[in-house]
Amino acid sequence: MLRPNPLKAARTPSCDGLSPGALSDALAVPCPMTERPDPALFPARLGAAAAATEELLATLLADRPEPGEIARPRRLIEAMRHAALAGGKRLRPFLVIESAALFSVPPQQAAMAGAALECVHCYSLVHDDLPAMDNDAMRRGRPTTHIAFDEATAILAGDSLLTLAFDILSRPQVHPDPAVRVALIGALARASGLGGMAGGQMLDLAAEGRFGKSVPDERRVVELQRMKTGALLRFACIAGAILGNASAHEHKALADYGEALGAAFQIADDLLDIEGDAAALGKATGKDAAAGKATLVGLLGVAPARARLADLVDRAQAALSVFGTRAACLQQAARYVAERER
Amino acid sequence: MLRPNPLKAARTPSCDGLSPGALSDALAVPCPMTERPDPALFPARLGAAAAATEELLATLLADRPEPGEIARPRRLIEAMRHAALAGGKRLRPFLVIESAALFSVPPQQAAMAGAALECVHCYSLVHDDLPAMDNDAMRRGRPTTHIAFDEATAILAGDSLLTLAFDILSRPQVHPDPAVRVALIGALARASGLGGMAGGQMLDLAAEGRFGKSVPDERRVVELQRMKTGALLRFACIAGAILGNASAHEHKALADYGEALGAAFQIADDLLDIEGDAAALGKATGKDAAAGKATLVGLLGVAPARARLADLVDRAQAALSVFGTRAACLQQAARYVAERER
Repeated sequence: MLRPNPLKAARTPSCDGLSPGALSDALAVPCPMTERPDPALFPARLGAAAAATEELLATLLADRPEPGEIARPRRLIEAMRHAALAGGKRLRPFLVIESAALFSVPPQQAAMAGAALECVHCYSLVHDDLPAMDNDAMRRGRPTTHIAFDEATAILAGDSLLTLAFDILSRPQVHPDPAVRVALIGALARASGLGGMAGGQMLDLAAEGRFGKSVPDERRVVELQRMKTGALLRFACIAGAILGNASAHEHKALADYGEALGAAFQIADDLLDIEGDAAALGKATGKDAAAGKATLVGLLGVAPARARLADLVDRAQAALSVFGTRAACLQQAARYVAERER
Repeated sequence: MLRPNPLKAARTPSCDGLSPGALSDALAVPCPMTERPDPALFPARLGAAAAATEELLATLLADRPEPGEIARPRRLIEAMRHAALAGGKRLRPFLVIESAALFSVPPQQAAMAGAALECVHCYSLVHDDLPAMDNDAMRRGRPTTHIAFDEATAILAGDSLLTLAFDILSRPQVHPDPAVRVALIGALARASGLGGMAGGQMLDLAAEGRFGKSVPDERRVVELQRMKTGALLRFACIAGAILGNASAHEHKALADYGEALGAAFQIADDLLDIEGDAAALGKATGKDAAAGKATLVGLLGVAPARARLADLVDRAQAALSVFGTRAACLQQAARYVAERER
């Protein structure tokens, strides 16, 4: 089945913050469909997804209250913008958009779902950076939200970004069928709550030995990371399947891809913390060892962790075979996640 | 139109934590339908809703992960239970159940929606009590979550309760029609996010003068309280209209009722902070004045605030006239909110 030409979004006036102009232009870059896809297309599409996400989030975080809201307090919305409009790779929205493109989902719909997911990711960073959590002062080369504002404002900005994510997913712009929207909401909640990301953050703090001596073994570190980082990346990939009413077989392929990709992402992250350049990363390095964080790199050593990373990239790419060359962009994403420098 | 006899919940086996036994028994107390309803029925139904909510939350916060979750870390789930199973009046779930009963919505469905709303309420208390926010050590006569556990755990427990609320609302047990569930999700998100409760908390901190001199006038205090307290109570009342596919007229009646009830609740709360008994309240009194909190009681004085409170109760009760004697329980609730001692 051939994927249709990239859609030009209709310029619909909207009270929900969608201004699809730049969005459709950005995503009008075609996805590689040939046997030997141009390696330059992946960075172009990653950049296009990032630009689309940035624009959508800026509109979603406008000053004007939406229907059903009473007012948007200036300090709170500014802190939310500080947290959500700080640039970044926007890898998760990219994965939503690309996985949805496999099923010819209009990119504006996928970008809305991607923006919701990015709100969850950004909230988790704001709360993770708090003094009581990881106590980080810098993020993406800028002061973290509680440094730029204050702790109370950062707590509320994180809470509000998380809440906004579910607001966004409830809107018809995500998908005309409410059953699809509610499936996305349920899946995102389970990926990000006590049995997913937030639970993983809890295990991460416990693995530092905060609540008593803790020497997590490999199995526990893998589970911790599946929850803390993996669950949200996996959701990004299955979001496309949900939006596209994928078959069970296709859904599983994207889940397997997301699972391997998430594990690869975390190992690459841990390697960067040891070997990376703080200036390129926009945050301090060497923090994991200093904080006593449990990582696979620490448990296995650098070379075996690199081998595991290569294996995970292979597994991620193999999972996509059901989609043939249509998934070339996601194939390249798996390699990018492993080889990125920030 | 007569309301049917109270429903006996079917004992459906469920993977989503619903154990409707005690729920149906508790809510099998009939709602008053006579010209002179028995005043003892209101406390009975309030107690029944509280018992049903407590049981539901205990099941929803079980150790076993739900499908789509990886694991439920013990420390996190214990902190969530500490925050959510601390008793309390469960006024918001009661309002959901009673407003839904006007439209013959099965009480198990309304109780699920009420439990989701209570998760949002409980998360807001956990985060509000944090040292960077209101810095409270006691709540409902017990140590607050960050005292009983630690700050990081309290932050994550709050985040996870908020996330769980949307998870719950996405489940078919709330309503078989996904369009109804998605409407509840959107309305709850807007009532609790930056344009509702969380925004109100932000304005509350600003009114203390934390971010520069601030002397909020009556209009601003009313808006602050509409957001901080009113939005969630209003949602509780319109949740029944959403669950019951109410007409626009009925929806507006419940929204007006919830709006007046929310304003009354806050004035009563502020009066209790001045005149109440700390032991009965289970928390310290006199805190508002000490913290420089902006309240209508502080602005208007006690006697004018009492007069405003009486007027709000009248308005809340008047809004229900469209439902006749079927709304007797909600009528009594308005008086209870104004006259409660804790």
